[in-house]
Amino acid sequence: MSWTTLWLEKRLSEPSGLKIGEEGTGIPEASPRLKNAHKELLHSPVMKDAGEVILSFTNDPSLGQEGYRILTEDPGKGYRIEANTDTGILFGVFRLIALRRLSDDGDISETGVPYHPIRMLDHWDNMDGSIERGYSGESFFFENDRIVINERTEDYARFLSSLGYNGVVINNVNVKDAACDLINQRFIRDVKELSDLFMSYGVKLYLSLNYASPMEDEQVRSADPLDPKVISWWEKKFEEIYREIPELGGFLVKADSEGRPGPFTYGRTQADGANMLARAIKKHGGIIIWRCFVYNCQQDWRDLKTDRARSAYDYFKDLDGEFDDHVILQIKNGPMDFQVREPVSPLFGGMKHTNQMIEFQIAQEYTGQQRHVCYLIPWFKEVLSFETYEKPEQAGVGTTVLDIVSGRTNNNPLGGMCAVTNTGNDENWTGHDLAAANLYGFGRLCFDPSLSAEEIADEWICLTFGKNPKVRENIKKILMMSWPAYEKYSAPLGIGWMVSPNQHYGPDPDGYEYSRWGTYHKADHKGIGVDRSTKGTGYASLYNEPLASMYEKPETTPEELILFFHHMPYDHVLKSGKTILQHIYDTHFEGASDAEEMAGLWQELEGLVDEDAFMRVTKRFRHQVEHSKEWRDVINSYFYRKTLIPDEKGRTLY
Amino acid sequence: MSWTTLWLEKRLSEPSGLKIGEEGTGIPEASPRLKNAHKELLHSPVMKDAGEVILSFTNDPSLGQEGYRILTEDPGKGYRIEANTDTGILFGVFRLIALRRLSDDGDISETGVPYHPIRMLDHWDNMDGSIERGYSGESFFFENDRIVINERTEDYARFLSSLGYNGVVINNVNVKDAACDLINQRFIRDVKELSDLFMSYGVKLYLSLNYASPMEDEQVRSADPLDPKVISWWEKKFEEIYREIPELGGFLVKADSEGRPGPFTYGRTQADGANMLARAIKKHGGIIIWRCFVYNCQQDWRDLKTDRARSAYDYFKDLDGEFDDHVILQIKNGPMDFQVREPVSPLFGGMKHTNQMIEFQIAQEYTGQQRHVCYLIPWFKEVLSFETYEKPEQAGVGTTVLDIVSGRTNNNPLGGMCAVTNTGNDENWTGHDLAAANLYGFGRLCFDPSLSAEEIADEWICLTFGKNPKVRENIKKILMMSWPAYEKYSAPLGIGWMVSPNQHYGPDPDGYEYSRWGTYHKADHKGIGVDRSTKGTGYASLYNEPLASMYEKPETTPEELILFFHHMPYDHVLKSGKTILQHIYDTHFEGASDAEEMAGLWQELEGLVDEDAFMRVTKRFRHQVEHSKEWRDVINSYFYRKTLIPDEKGRTLY
Repeated sequence: MSWTTLWLEKRLSEPSGLKIGEEGTGIPEASPRLKNAHKELLHSPVMKDAGEVILSFTNDPSLGQEGYRILTEDPGKGYRIEANTDTGILFGVFRLIALRRLSDDGDISETGVPYHPIRMLDHWDNMDGSIERGYSGESFFFENDRIVINERTEDYARFLSSLGYNGVVINNVNVKDAACDLINQRFIRDVKELSDLFMSYGVKLYLSLNYASPMEDEQVRSADPLDPKVISWWEKKFEEIYREIPELGGFLVKADSEGRPGPFTYGRTQADGANMLARAIKKHGGIIIWRCFVYNCQQDWRDLKTDRARSAYDYFKDLDGEFDDHVILQIKNGPMDFQVREPVSPLFGGMKHTNQMIEFQIAQEYTGQQRHVCYLIPWFKEVLSFETYEKPEQAGVGTTVLDIVSGRTNNNPLGGMCAVTNTGNDENWTGHDLAAANLYGFGRLCFDPSLSAEEIADEWICLTFGKNPKVRENIKKILMMSWPAYEKYSAPLGIGWMVSPNQHYGPDPDGYEYSRWGTYHKADHKGIGVDRSTKGTGYASLYNEPLASMYEKPETTPEELILFFHHMPYDHVLKSGKTILQHIYDTHFEGASDAEEMAGLWQELEGLVDEDAFMRVTKRFRHQVEHSKEWRDVINSYFYRKTLIPDEKGRTLY
Repeated sequence: MSWTTLWLEKRLSEPSGLKIGEEGTGIPEASPRLKNAHKELLHSPVMKDAGEVILSFTNDPSLGQEGYRILTEDPGKGYRIEANTDTGILFGVFRLIALRRLSDDGDISETGVPYHPIRMLDHWDNMDGSIERGYSGESFFFENDRIVINERTEDYARFLSSLGYNGVVINNVNVKDAACDLINQRFIRDVKELSDLFMSYGVKLYLSLNYASPMEDEQVRSADPLDPKVISWWEKKFEEIYREIPELGGFLVKADSEGRPGPFTYGRTQADGANMLARAIKKHGGIIIWRCFVYNCQQDWRDLKTDRARSAYDYFKDLDGEFDDHVILQIKNGPMDFQVREPVSPLFGGMKHTNQMIEFQIAQEYTGQQRHVCYLIPWFKEVLSFETYEKPEQAGVGTTVLDIVSGRTNNNPLGGMCAVTNTGNDENWTGHDLAAANLYGFGRLCFDPSLSAEEIADEWICLTFGKNPKVRENIKKILMMSWPAYEKYSAPLGIGWMVSPNQHYGPDPDGYEYSRWGTYHKADHKGIGVDRSTKGTGYASLYNEPLASMYEKPETTPEELILFFHHMPYDHVLKSGKTILQHIYDTHFEGASDAEEMAGLWQELEGLVDEDAFMRVTKRFRHQVEHSKEWRDVINSYFYRKTLIPDEKGRTLY
């Protein structure tokens, strides 16, 4: 098994001579997390000559339940890790090991306190071993309707812990077949074993839930959230589960979406559904994470009034304040579905009295499926720093998306970030070796959103490929170029969805144009784009001012989103002085050429990085270079054929 | 199990009092076919009061091996069936039963001699039970990698026999997994049992063959047709098979196509491959049916020179005369793939000294998948009557496609017609009850191509739904309208391929436009179509004169194929006085309205036909009406958006 992409070094088979001291009061006896902290220190190659490490239990409110402080006692002689809890100690230990490898002189001092209450990865793994939108092999949690627990499971738990992730949802939100039994006796022992394993690394286990579960009970045969039989069914069910697994984090629910059952079936609101579960789980300390991905997926493409982009807002905004405090709403970063470019969901700025969590996707469903390199952290940074212009009740707090989902803006007790993960049982975990930068990077970003995308990239590169300056420079350049490149050669100017239906890989400009999915671009001979101003679907007006006015008019809409908000003529001149059509041609040629440049930068690293990794990435780049040309030519030809306006630079269009 | 769609009445449980006499020399003792002839007569409800039936073995060269003559001895007293063989007797018996039901006065006289040596159905059934391009449930031949033989198998054999089909290929041409073992000991007893069953109804069993089979043998590890080890492997294999199943018809081979292995791998020709097998099978009396569906399925859509339509011709034409006489080339009716409209393959007119068989598809892969009604016999009639202008060596023989594939034009010993079948384990066999008209009709057309599509439809309607005049009139009208309607509302003017990729159902105008499949329409703002004149791909010139000259120019190309042969501006005026664009708009509105009309005609039959069948067909029509509107609107909007030219009649385009 290759370790490169998970940064962690291979453990020493025998414990090193490192000395470990413990001090302070409240040292938990035989704590699994403390044991694991010792184990990491003793078996880490980089700690061998570190002298002594003091694990110091303290009582420092600024460190919270998961924070740590690392101090160099006496350079060369050892370190001190302070924390309030064993989890804080463990996170500090992993960070110390990382910093030892990153630092040049071993003089380390860092205080780390996670920014978000919840920092989570969501697996869309099915119990037959398949992964919905998985691009790195099969599931390592499930195989043939059984739970798998082996060395890889522990490696994964260690990896999550090493980045300060504190939650993991192990099964697909579309809960079907055997997965319905994850909450039943059939699997409860295995789930407990998994939960214990992850808890020993400070990571809570969560399950996706089938909202319609009580329908299976002959005595209930309903999922109406106001039906006392349903309520009592869930009370008993949670009782039964938490008796066995008191540390279980809670449940993730996709209801009333894409064919999943939900409270709408009974004429109830989303709040009715979520609260019913939350009230039943509350006394056990668990939480209910409720997805806002609710929309009409049977839309008529001829219908110009319905707008999928409005759905989450329209369904949830008016419920603000009605959700129980053990509910978190999980809101996708954008109003559509993980496109390479979308506006930020207006729902973040629309709710005050509701716990919110932002859902990203590091599985590259729409961004090259881990066959193209696409480092997403710069994009996530943009989303998090988006100013919502919400008016908080308390003065002086920030109102960016980051402020909101971390709970700071409105003093919400829960919140955070999660991402649909990109892992599988491929040897290198993420299919494309460079896709691991997203797995690593997302964890770091959750923990410390003040880090820049470059800083995170550099850290990951050093830990994974070493500190050779050429390696650092080239891979960083590749990573930082990759998302803009993908945006350039795929669907233009925020319009999205020009992908082959179902599989979502490769260009198909009209693939979703006449479909039921609410994802249209309305390109014709003269122009393209969706009018979401008040003259159109009115989506722009869902934002707080001054955003609503900004998006209302093409002149003030950020150009990278202009086709998302407006139907524009191809001859509209952008700030660059180029028409939209020429912009499309140019960016597509540039994007494909960027792919070649990235491949070239990688080729320069032959001999400087692990040979297997080099070959794997080389092979993927070979594909990316070809496939980006396919994107370029299909998209450009599509527009050329519609307009018959040639490229100003005379390049070949088909 | 519903019997309606297979026309055959339920057998009487006890034999009727019908008298059966036998006369003539050469009556085969205990012949299974003769036994079955008796059984049909004795158990047929319609024969109960027929008096006496004399089965007369004669020696009349005009009747051949499978023909019969039915005479009414004395009206009301009985019938006489003359034939040279037990198969002829059996076919005559089935026909007598049908005619008893069709006739008003029981006075029957008909001589039937099948027109084609081979009249065959091809199953694309996989051994796991799935059917490639199957729209009527799962396979009734295979289930979970096992062969199934039950009552339905015999019903099917009877049905084939009742129409004079004399061959059936039971497994998919893409031979994979367990199906590779159909020629091995694992399944040979089951195949023999199946073969015996079908032979007892005069139908020969054929298998699809994996050309690469000897690769599996460690001693051979090759499929090179000139390798003595390969040759001797096949000799032994056929020896082994025919020892067990001497009556097996032979084998169907898809080689060098869509990822299937073949002689090209070894730099050999298709003739090398086919002849190697034919020489090994010859002494056993079997034949090799070799598909001509060979083309480059990895084409670059930017490449304007390669033309998939040329492939079969280019690969096979020059091999004329090189094929062994136990080889039949199986040529698809058109140069592409079973589109609703294509030109006739030029290969039929290009070869003289080669056995040819035409391959149709009654599985409605591209014509509504048995959810739309689409009676294909009128289309097949057009294809068969196509004049190839081949110059035969013998004077006075015909040169239509029908003449060629029946072997008449060039005095070829073998030939005929086959169709990819539309059956499955659905209760009504064909999914759509009206799709059974194709299953019935194709058999009748093979046997007697002089029948008109209307005559065949009327026969099937009477046998299936009875002789009520309203029923006859309305269903005939539906059937005769159905193919033209499908053509109207789907891809226009012979261009084809505007379907959703892979599944081939529903509109997707650009679905195959940027693909590797060689199936493009090249629509742009000004026009659409593929230039296949000598200025383009040169495909038109593959036809004999005067066809080549006719197809060379737009003015002389039949308009229903104009976009197949030429890239035409939308404002080109057709003979109707309409522009191509307005023709597209009009036909699409007409087609959808035809679907409504057909549905209405069916509704009028409530209470006049079997209630279950009425409901099933009603349900499918409901879908067809909606789906034809989807076709109409997507295709029309596609062209409207490209041109922004509105409909002259002001109807809504999107």
